[in-house]
Amino acid sequence: MNTASSSATSSHQTDQHDPLVQTSIEAWKRGIVERNWSAVGELLAEDVAYHNPATFDPYLGKSTLVTVLRTVFDIFEDFEYHRQFSSGAGYVLEFSARVGDAKLFGVDMIELNEKGLITNLMVLIRPADVVLTLSTEAARRLGATPASTD
Amino acid sequence: MNTASSSATSSHQTDQHDPLVQTSIEAWKRGIVERNWSAVGELLAEDVAYHNPATFDPYLGKSTLVTVLRTVFDIFEDFEYHRQFSSGAGYVLEFSARVGDAKLFGVDMIELNEKGLITNLMVLIRPADVVLTLSTEAARRLGATPASTD
Repeated sequence: MNTASSSATSSHQTDQHDPLVQTSIEAWKRGIVERNWSAVGELLAEDVAYHNPATFDPYLGKSTLVTVLRTVFDIFEDFEYHRQFSSGAGYVLEFSARVGDAKLFGVDMIELNEKGLITNLMVLIRPADVVLTLSTEAARRLGATPASTD
Repeated sequence: MNTASSSATSSHQTDQHDPLVQTSIEAWKRGIVERNWSAVGELLAEDVAYHNPATFDPYLGKSTLVTVLRTVFDIFEDFEYHRQFSSGAGYVLEFSARVGDAKLFGVDMIELNEKGLITNLMVLIRPADVVLTLSTEAARRLGATPASTD
């Protein structure tokens, strides 16, 4: 893929966030890739808002988000982070993964507070049919009804 | 919403792209918001790849992308750009819009070449049901069959 004239290696030079925030983003990526949910939970503000790819209204709260992430990452295969973008408003992390045979691309849009805790996570994923497959399967797994007692 | 400790006004200080590329991004945003499709077309490389929110395979070529944008923006209402993120790999522009009564959020992920022309555009939109409404309506309008002769 073509990139802008600035070389790809310059992407971290554009990150002017303070070290606490940069450390949190690196810890987030490591925690997600290693599926270390306790480490991920420590990076979240208690009242973190999670805007998911499938529905409009956000989910609120640290424990809710950890449960959703744990469920979604049980479905994802071959998850990888790629490009990283930043601004004074936060970070955008690009990822790819697979759900069954279907490949998907997505972004995490992350806002952090002055303590380096994540206050807002918006996730967008394409293509849309894979989002619906993923959200249907995640909702099934999150549901309290045990399928085996039907 | 909480933001990172760097103030929102610092977001442009993190943009270390050369002026040609920065000018192109500003011209892209202006062209899109003003629905000036000839101005938008001038910013696209001939072989631009467009990765849309609904389907996996990209659309290729400048004229295809202009046609798609023109069609989608005939459906969008209240389109607005919000946060902007950058890195050596390009830009991420956040937007919101409405399709009928349904509000949506999305991002443009833009790569440019050394001439300041856009070579790669990936668009992600949430929530997924609105993506499907949008892509179904866009496909209907792009179809060659005139509805009035049924």
